[in-house]
Amino acid sequence: MWVELDLQSDVPIYEQLAGQLMEGMASGRLQPGDALPSVRSLASDLGINLHTVNKAYQALRQEGFLQIHRKQGVVVQTQGMPGVTDSFVAKLRRQLRAVAAEAAVRGMDERRFAEECREVFRAVRGSERSGMEE
Amino acid sequence: MWVELDLQSDVPIYEQLAGQLMEGMASGRLQPGDALPSVRSLASDLGINLHTVNKAYQALRQEGFLQIHRKQGVVVQTQGMPGVTDSFVAKLRRQLRAVAAEAAVRGMDERRFAEECREVFRAVRGSERSGMEE
Repeated sequence: MWVELDLQSDVPIYEQLAGQLMEGMASGRLQPGDALPSVRSLASDLGINLHTVNKAYQALRQEGFLQIHRKQGVVVQTQGMPGVTDSFVAKLRRQLRAVAAEAAVRGMDERRFAEECREVFRAVRGSERSGMEE
Repeated sequence: MWVELDLQSDVPIYEQLAGQLMEGMASGRLQPGDALPSVRSLASDLGINLHTVNKAYQALRQEGFLQIHRKQGVVVQTQGMPGVTDSFVAKLRRQLRAVAAEAAVRGMDERRFAEECREVFRAVRGSERSGMEE
């Protein structure tokens, strides 16, 4: 699998893994119905704990991005992805605060900050999707 | 002090603390030369470990946002804040990726995402500064 983890980072491993799976879904690399590796096999491939993989899968399942079936295993949500809920918007804002504050203290202006955000958004959607909007 | 920590969060405490001090500097609540509480007194106020406060202070000192003097203690940088370095821009992009990906998967469009980023940026700069630009 194309997941890359930074074991030195302060970002918890399960969160990095969930983030990368999310990037896979955003770029279209992971499509609804695609099967993900079993907990055991992904943990072994990545050299991390079973529990860590399970935590990432369960978090994404609880939010509605993955389905976990007894037989088929772990599959990208086929019933439509969760939408832009209030609680997501609150989380988005919370996560942006510290980095926006640091940008402001370093003298980045609002326009440049918004432009950086826009570029990252485009980048995560990936090349096959860019150009569809605007 | 006005710092509020979420001990249930997966974000490491020292990182939350550093983030809030950064917000203080972004909003102007903390001005260059302002003294911060000693490690011991802040740890005791917040009910957290000395080591955690020290880690936040040291991280901000290493990046150039704080000065630590033997006698005066911990002070907000008076020699000019660090600027928008390449390594900061790289960190900004890295931190935005997962949340931008989730926004995209949830169907938020690029314009709305950039607008949310802009609003957070304005909010962290605080009311006394908004209106200075644009």
